[in-house]
Amino acid sequence: MPESPIRKLVPLSRQAIARGVKIYHLNIGQPDIKTPQVGLDALKKIDRSILEYTPSEGLLSLRKKLVGYYKKFQIDLDAEDIIITTGGSEAVLFAMMACLDPGDEIIVPEPAYANYTAFAVACGAVIRPFLLNIENGFAMPPAEEFEKMITPRTRAILISNPNNPTGYLYSRKELEDMRDLVEKYDLYLFSDEVYREFCYTGAPHISCLHLEGIRDNVILIDSVSKRYSECGIRIGALISKNEQVRQNVMKFCQARLCPPLIGQLIAEASLDVHESYMEKVYQEYLGRRNFMIEAINKIPGCYSPMPMGAFYTVARLPIDDADRFCAWLLDSFEYDRKTIMVAPASGFYSAPNVGRNEVRLAYVLNKDDLATAMMLLEKALEIYPGRTI
Amino acid sequence: MPESPIRKLVPLSRQAIARGVKIYHLNIGQPDIKTPQVGLDALKKIDRSILEYTPSEGLLSLRKKLVGYYKKFQIDLDAEDIIITTGGSEAVLFAMMACLDPGDEIIVPEPAYANYTAFAVACGAVIRPFLLNIENGFAMPPAEEFEKMITPRTRAILISNPNNPTGYLYSRKELEDMRDLVEKYDLYLFSDEVYREFCYTGAPHISCLHLEGIRDNVILIDSVSKRYSECGIRIGALISKNEQVRQNVMKFCQARLCPPLIGQLIAEASLDVHESYMEKVYQEYLGRRNFMIEAINKIPGCYSPMPMGAFYTVARLPIDDADRFCAWLLDSFEYDRKTIMVAPASGFYSAPNVGRNEVRLAYVLNKDDLATAMMLLEKALEIYPGRTI
Repeated sequence: MPESPIRKLVPLSRQAIARGVKIYHLNIGQPDIKTPQVGLDALKKIDRSILEYTPSEGLLSLRKKLVGYYKKFQIDLDAEDIIITTGGSEAVLFAMMACLDPGDEIIVPEPAYANYTAFAVACGAVIRPFLLNIENGFAMPPAEEFEKMITPRTRAILISNPNNPTGYLYSRKELEDMRDLVEKYDLYLFSDEVYREFCYTGAPHISCLHLEGIRDNVILIDSVSKRYSECGIRIGALISKNEQVRQNVMKFCQARLCPPLIGQLIAEASLDVHESYMEKVYQEYLGRRNFMIEAINKIPGCYSPMPMGAFYTVARLPIDDADRFCAWLLDSFEYDRKTIMVAPASGFYSAPNVGRNEVRLAYVLNKDDLATAMMLLEKALEIYPGRTI
Repeated sequence: MPESPIRKLVPLSRQAIARGVKIYHLNIGQPDIKTPQVGLDALKKIDRSILEYTPSEGLLSLRKKLVGYYKKFQIDLDAEDIIITTGGSEAVLFAMMACLDPGDEIIVPEPAYANYTAFAVACGAVIRPFLLNIENGFAMPPAEEFEKMITPRTRAILISNPNNPTGYLYSRKELEDMRDLVEKYDLYLFSDEVYREFCYTGAPHISCLHLEGIRDNVILIDSVSKRYSECGIRIGALISKNEQVRQNVMKFCQARLCPPLIGQLIAEASLDVHESYMEKVYQEYLGRRNFMIEAINKIPGCYSPMPMGAFYTVARLPIDDADRFCAWLLDSFEYDRKTIMVAPASGFYSAPNVGRNEVRLAYVLNKDDLATAMMLLEKALEIYPGRTI
């Protein structure tokens, strides 16, 4: 398993800090938004004398309450369809382990979340990347083209919607095309929907569990990490209407005993968060997105499509090589004792030499810091030796 | 992956409860001991507005503090040798994933912790069981015999010491024999030492990290679950002096982002637990062990070796088939509206038809309940239709 390009930058960022340079982090998915008070309060109220195992599938009270949560998004579930996992990460890993045999292929539209590859490696499955293009905003091509990817070894399609790293939101047409292929070839559809509540188009989010006729093929991945700014509690969910899949997943769940007790209690309490919290978070990200994308597109030679969800974008910069540029930002550039850290897009593509002039930017800073970060990006591009335009 | 025999009993236990029969649980590893107050207090004191990711390798403050903990057991570590995991379970899984390729063989003395098999399956490795015998108290055979297990595909030996399910504690001679083989064939030695502080021989626990000349081969698995009765917080550790191994492990750690934040804070605080807590817990288990083993060995036809550690024993009963007996206890037996639940030993052996007349008993009940449970076992054996003696 190769080292991720962003990890290689970490020692450089430490050196920059040691030199007294302040770094504006646009490279990470850790929101700066406060955890809902109702979740924090739950922590203080825990009154147990033994911090025991929970059931392997998670606390029934949490699973029941989640049924109500999903109902608000027109996803009809029973508590038994929901298995609580240790973060969305574990849900992806267990979905792959339960559904795939070594050598089985998963088609993943790329750029894609880098850690999917690690989970596929862990269970011996093979990721077949389907390359999307920044020029048409990372939209899916006609279904016939996507269909050509399918081989006798194909067992699953994996999407994240809204997408990390691009912020792309699949259209109804695209999802229905995918639905047709899933049905035609009897594939699993792993749908990572952890950014469900971060959609900026005004239209409601379309879940893969809304698609008709493939109920038993869909495995929905979820997490409270981003939704409630609770990345550290490690609570996610694997949701499936397919009993056989759930039974297979449960074997891995039982082997790891249970998801974290305290995290489950916090997640359960957080489901009571007032609508105004989500609305405020939504408005905050919407404002940041609009600001950042406008700023990028004003910098000569830069281009970012308008992301429709999540809190990332993949932007094209006028540079020779994003790995080199991102390292240079940390080890050679500074302006007013400041620099920025961004993620080279190479980590989100399986193939080498793809997206070499692209970076992922996360808008997880407040608007003032974001303004400084965009100014720094512009200043950096003015003097970067590998500038191409 | 086969369903574990104990899982098959769960629906029967629910039915027994529904009939109004009280079940004494000797089947589980959930201690009834209270979590240290210092750990519970830490929960209330958490004062953060964002429950964020921790580093993938765990909080540095916890890792540093663990160095001091291990020093008390003559295990000399640097913080960088310690990677915090989501329970000991994840440490086992990551150790296998980082060190083994699909098809690689791990030799495991059996009976062994049932979930090792699930983790091996998950990474495509093959468990080669080495059968131990209740007649000589599950001691290891002469080294030559064990050596015959080693093939060109053997990459690791996996032990738990003290052992779950037998309570066996490896002698210095046995561990040094193992050391010699590990060195001779350059194998990994995965040593699950989560019951380190539950040793009843008076002698200090011998860690595989005490063994000379195989520093880079040992991977120590640990957990706070049993030690501090904190099973639900899911905090364990993978410890290795081998930098290459740690680098491989870290790739899996990074993919799953981080271990639970709150659990780490509780575990860190729990390291300050007063010696008197551990002493009290120790005395409690020692008393229970002595009581239970004596009681078993007084029942006609029963035999249990004296376990030297952990809080389990594997006992031989005068029965045709433990799977059947354990089910019968739940669906057909009751005495004074009470019954017991125990684990058939078949789940701890890879081979079929081994240990058919053995069960694992966990002494996780207080002495009064344990006395009732032993009385119930005796009454049950008197009338069990499949009794062999």
